[in-house]
Amino acid sequence: MRDFPPEEKILRDEVIAVLKEIFELYGFSPLETPVVERWEVLSAKYSGGEEILKETFKLKDQGGRDLGLRYDLTVPLARFVGMNPTIKRPFKRYQIGTVYRDGPIKKGRTREFYQCDADIVGSSSPLADAECVQLALEVFERLKIEIVVKINNRKVLYELARAAQIPEELAETAILSLDKLEKIGPAGVIREMTERGIPQVKAERFLGGAQDPEALKRGEGYRELEPILGYLQDARVVWTPSLARGLSYYTGTIYEVYAKESSVTGSLAAGGRYDNMIGQFLGGAEKIPAVGISFGLEPIMEVLKEQRRDLPTRKTVTQAYVIPFKNLLDEGRRVCQQLRRAGIKTDIDFLAKGISDGLKYANAYDIPFVVIVGPDEIAQGKVKLRDMRSGEEQLLTVAETVRQIAERSS
Amino acid sequence: MRDFPPEEKILRDEVIAVLKEIFELYGFSPLETPVVERWEVLSAKYSGGEEILKETFKLKDQGGRDLGLRYDLTVPLARFVGMNPTIKRPFKRYQIGTVYRDGPIKKGRTREFYQCDADIVGSSSPLADAECVQLALEVFERLKIEIVVKINNRKVLYELARAAQIPEELAETAILSLDKLEKIGPAGVIREMTERGIPQVKAERFLGGAQDPEALKRGEGYRELEPILGYLQDARVVWTPSLARGLSYYTGTIYEVYAKESSVTGSLAAGGRYDNMIGQFLGGAEKIPAVGISFGLEPIMEVLKEQRRDLPTRKTVTQAYVIPFKNLLDEGRRVCQQLRRAGIKTDIDFLAKGISDGLKYANAYDIPFVVIVGPDEIAQGKVKLRDMRSGEEQLLTVAETVRQIAERSS
Repeated sequence: MRDFPPEEKILRDEVIAVLKEIFELYGFSPLETPVVERWEVLSAKYSGGEEILKETFKLKDQGGRDLGLRYDLTVPLARFVGMNPTIKRPFKRYQIGTVYRDGPIKKGRTREFYQCDADIVGSSSPLADAECVQLALEVFERLKIEIVVKINNRKVLYELARAAQIPEELAETAILSLDKLEKIGPAGVIREMTERGIPQVKAERFLGGAQDPEALKRGEGYRELEPILGYLQDARVVWTPSLARGLSYYTGTIYEVYAKESSVTGSLAAGGRYDNMIGQFLGGAEKIPAVGISFGLEPIMEVLKEQRRDLPTRKTVTQAYVIPFKNLLDEGRRVCQQLRRAGIKTDIDFLAKGISDGLKYANAYDIPFVVIVGPDEIAQGKVKLRDMRSGEEQLLTVAETVRQIAERSS
Repeated sequence: MRDFPPEEKILRDEVIAVLKEIFELYGFSPLETPVVERWEVLSAKYSGGEEILKETFKLKDQGGRDLGLRYDLTVPLARFVGMNPTIKRPFKRYQIGTVYRDGPIKKGRTREFYQCDADIVGSSSPLADAECVQLALEVFERLKIEIVVKINNRKVLYELARAAQIPEELAETAILSLDKLEKIGPAGVIREMTERGIPQVKAERFLGGAQDPEALKRGEGYRELEPILGYLQDARVVWTPSLARGLSYYTGTIYEVYAKESSVTGSLAAGGRYDNMIGQFLGGAEKIPAVGISFGLEPIMEVLKEQRRDLPTRKTVTQAYVIPFKNLLDEGRRVCQQLRRAGIKTDIDFLAKGISDGLKYANAYDIPFVVIVGPDEIAQGKVKLRDMRSGEEQLLTVAETVRQIAERSS
């Protein structure tokens, strides 16, 4: 867990605003579910699974009910859909909020972090999958982050396992090993598979198959992927047959977004189609197809910091700081309110301890403009506007001050 | 804990956006602290106190560390100030976030709720107090909620207790009884005080004093209040000598904001000056004056729902719904992307199941415009724009469609 002081929070808020804007542009509406969920919901079969449950914070209320802190935003979505069966589908919602994992504390990993999710519940159209990827392309264009989207279909991998005659109960194991291809190399993948009970010859056949796209293109998995690639027609979207994604609830399309040329090696966003999870979560009577994408705020912020060193890390959102002379607090306050009424984010020196102290304060916070309210200025019905970057000072009316600040801020 | 479906969340987000905008206009910058804090911090002396601690959710991490869910945003602020001693003061921060109380479940009270706080740390100027109240006046003007601000100074009440010769150790008890004057009436206040060991004659003298503003005006408490009232000069701000506020950490000015003519009887915002809390919390070596205000999102939403029945409760933010004919999905998608690029929040019928199904969907979500992409329209290089409120249909180019939607949406 950590704090985000203004110099970080201002930028985080801007990224969240971009995500919110693009989510809404793509027809997703906001939903909010609580941070604390009933344990029953979090631990239900078909939800996050054993691995995640081990890292879920557990607590009790005064009534002795078992509760937990949500570890993602997808399980709460499934619960919400179940509790609101009359919602017209496809139901497109986005949610931006904190989730919690009680994992070991290590660098770059916090136990409270933001997920920013957009999901489409109730449509099995490949266009829905394409929309989620398109959304990601647009988000990263707006954030000016160059990316590559790895895309695959889980069925490609199951077909491959079948073709390699890997026993069904070991298919998932083989797929998860293959997912590490880039990390541990071909030899590593073979070693892991054989260690887990897959005969060497089958393991090799499996890996070989994954590296033979032409053969794979004949299967059902690729047939499902093809229209999505057709809709997107974007060079940034690359079919990656070895892509598996950890979570087992994905049933079809899967994708992960990576920053190009970055030291941030984890994905910035990821998601896919999970046609069984919500329905099974709700008892299995109905099949409810769904597809979605989840953006990680933390890795996005890391890439922004790394790739865009020009980004201003502002210590405050304040645009103007009013410094009144000692006995001119009332006049200073009036000027301050006039600036605010004109939409200028304005702060005022409460103590009126003098110009030099006031300038020091404005400097400490990097406030770009200072407005000095002194007796000479007041006598002329004006104020002194100081541009803190250039040091330039002008004697202006309040209306002119507003115009100057607005112009120079844009 | 509860969910906020889009029809509520959209309005909540708008109120949060107003709060954020006004906080920033007044020179406050955003800070974010985690929901989960160390138990040590939450339970420190001089923090929330026994009453609140009983209602604090407790949990442990895998390392066995005691943690808790924050019950307010003020204690985390004190911790942050302590951990960042070099921050230039006055430090003005705002924070909008959820807090948690494990209290009995009753109507209108949820265990997860939003606080929206603005605080000024490191200034003892009465102007700082006035700024917090001014901020509240501006927020409620923007929200079009008529309010009254009750204001007082805690010293007024201590002076009163001394004048009534109430023993020092019972002063707090007397003050908390008096705070209930409007709820339980004068007889109720006297009864409560005598039950708690204050002699009848002193209790009556105390209550009588609280109802004699002229006498109270001679004390130090009022002398501190006077400049603040002078700065504000607003008929909505009413000195209320019986106002005490529950929390004991307030040391000077206190205020509570109430909606006029509303069934919502609790305060919509409240705060005051707490000059000892942060310093004592950090060990007592330094005195760190502070003043702040906290807005409750939940009561504000209740008042808005009650007083402004005209407020639209939209089920979606989507402005336009593109319905393509069955074999015109590609063309529909192109139109959809053109609308989005022009800033229109647009959704598309994935299934292209036909106009009538599409119109039903747009109706279910109250989407104001439908854009039909059919063969006749495409042949003319146009689309059909349907205004769902009037039923009016026009054959337009995409550019004309954008203009029409933008115009009619404003």
